Amino acid sequence: MSTLIFGHKNPDTDTITAAITLAEFEKQDGNTDVEAVALGTPNAETKFALDFFKLNPLRVVKTVANETEHVDLVDHNEAQQSVDDRADVTIDKVIDHHRVANFQTEAPLYMRVEPLGSANSVIYKMFKEKGYTISPLIASLMASGLISDTLLLKSPTTTDQDRAMFADLQKIADVDLKDYGMKMLKAGTNLAARSDQDIIDGDAKSFTMGGKTVRIDQVNTVDLNDIYDRQDAIVAAMQAEKDAEGYDLFVVIATDIMNSNSTAFALGEKDKLEDAFGKKFDANDRLDLPGVVSRKKQVVPVLTDSFEK
Amino acid sequence: MSTLIFGHKNPDTDTITAAITLAEFEKQDGNTDVEAVALGTPNAETKFALDFFKLNPLRVVKTVANETEHVDLVDHNEAQQSVDDRADVTIDKVIDHHRVANFQTEAPLYMRVEPLGSANSVIYKMFKEKGYTISPLIASLMASGLISDTLLLKSPTTTDQDRAMFADLQKIADVDLKDYGMKMLKAGTNLAARSDQDIIDGDAKSFTMGGKTVRIDQVNTVDLNDIYDRQDAIVAAMQAEKDAEGYDLFVVIATDIMNSNSTAFALGEKDKLEDAFGKKFDANDRLDLPGVVSRKKQVVPVLTDSFEK
Ligand SMILES: [Mn+2]
Ligand SMILES: [Mn+2]
Repeated sequence: MSTLIFGHKNPDTDTITAAITLAEFEKQDGNTDVEAVALGTPNAETKFALDFFKLNPLRVVKTVANETEHVDLVDHNEAQQSVDDRADVTIDKVIDHHRVANFQTEAPLYMRVEPLGSANSVIYKMFKEKGYTISPLIASLMASGLISDTLLLKSPTTTDQDRAMFADLQKIADVDLKDYGMKMLKAGTNLAARSDQDIIDGDAKSFTMGGKTVRIDQVNTVDLNDIYDRQDAIVAAMQAEKDAEGYDLFVVIATDIMNSNSTAFALGEKDKLEDAFGKKFDANDRLDLPGVVSRKKQVVPVLTDSFEK
Repeated sequence: MSTLIFGHKNPDTDTITAAITLAEFEKQDGNTDVEAVALGTPNAETKFALDFFKLNPLRVVKTVANETEHVDLVDHNEAQQSVDDRADVTIDKVIDHHRVANFQTEAPLYMRVEPLGSANSVIYKMFKEKGYTISPLIASLMASGLISDTLLLKSPTTTDQDRAMFADLQKIADVDLKDYGMKMLKAGTNLAARSDQDIIDGDAKSFTMGGKTVRIDQVNTVDLNDIYDRQDAIVAAMQAEKDAEGYDLFVVIATDIMNSNSTAFALGEKDKLEDAFGKKFDANDRLDLPGVVSRKKQVVPVLTDSFEK
């Protein structure tokens, strides 16, 4: 039985590439019986990255206990973002760069969480500490995860360690990472090709805040007008999903990756969001969030505060 | 405001020394404004270690938010084992070697948990990875934590990494670590000098298992008869504390450190303990646990299973 390595539901580029790069780390570490898998199919951005490097999508699993007793988690730790039957297997390892919540084990494990720009940033450090080989392909995949999560090092989640890692990976990789990275990010912004449902679900994560269920989706674009033009349809799709799933608050954040600004649509306890940012939804029912690009660093902490105070 | 570094309540030798050695790591890492503190006074074993190296006990704090906004945790992560007002400060760092439970943050942090013999084993790796200096005193303190938690490398929690670290620390330290270590362990077994209340509280930790509150204390001895002779008085003290605190199960494990065996006394849901070990309390109301020396590895996981199945 292979140890399965996987990231969060609604996989993004960091989650998919971190599963692959951690699997490579494990192999060099002597654990040959590991398999990187995914909890969903790749989004447009990730598909661009995999196609670019001629890689097949990871095998998609819905449950894990039917085929293994041991798993490693990357890029997440919260139960509601993980595989549904996680409680039925042993978590041997967690490599992450998010807050820690809704996570518990029966026995000691290897858990390494660092406040860096990507899960791949932590895995990169593990390779360096052990002196393991980073191939041009692995370097490019690590960079893909970092570029995706930090919008090419522009997000406030970017640390000096991330910038140094990017420079080091550029020396190893066969491609111009900045040029490739911008193409990869743009591949994820082709909203015309995506349904309203896909837009509100594609990068959505659920959080528990003050006992309430908060769903936060983020969608990247190169022009916020592409989102504004579809606002009515997007909000209708949000309402249907909120009714079906019982979210207390559903937020969709549209992020202009060229200008590093965002706008939010929301349904439910919108006052908590207004309270978090100290401003009101405008006449178009949009909450303008200048300078906000990171859900993790600029949205989740202030919104959690707002729900828990 | 200094960042406060501390281990768990009812501090043991690993918790106290890990706070000191992590503070030294932080200073070499450029964070000079840190202070190692403790959530209680040193036990007899730890007092022996501190006296041996002519160190004063750490300052004891009952709360932290009154003097700082930032804390680092060593040797624990569960809320009920930590400072009471932990929710009012930001946890920047966690260095631990236990299961993860009852732990959550609002924002990303540095969290490093490894399944090693002591919290000091993780800190030792951090020193090595960064190439920081381990002085003879710091080496001796790291070894003290490891010796205490692994009963001089005899506990099943001892890993190859721990053994290699011990050998490396012996090269740095000014004392014969085995000889010193055995004296330190024996200093912690002078039961004649300890009250019944101190015996049932000295190394006790609380756990949540299947929604129930489980209190598990462990006491080391060189002769289990020293415990058997006081069984009635110890159990009476346990009953009083159980009534006062409302534990669902209260277990005191007496461990013979010379022969690596244990015996348990228990009050409350004793059937869960019997179920966990597949055997019954004997006519003297003792549960014989041959080969059991590690609460963490040999008691908590099976007992959690027993409560949660
Ligand atoms: Mn990530
Ligand atoms: Mn410890």
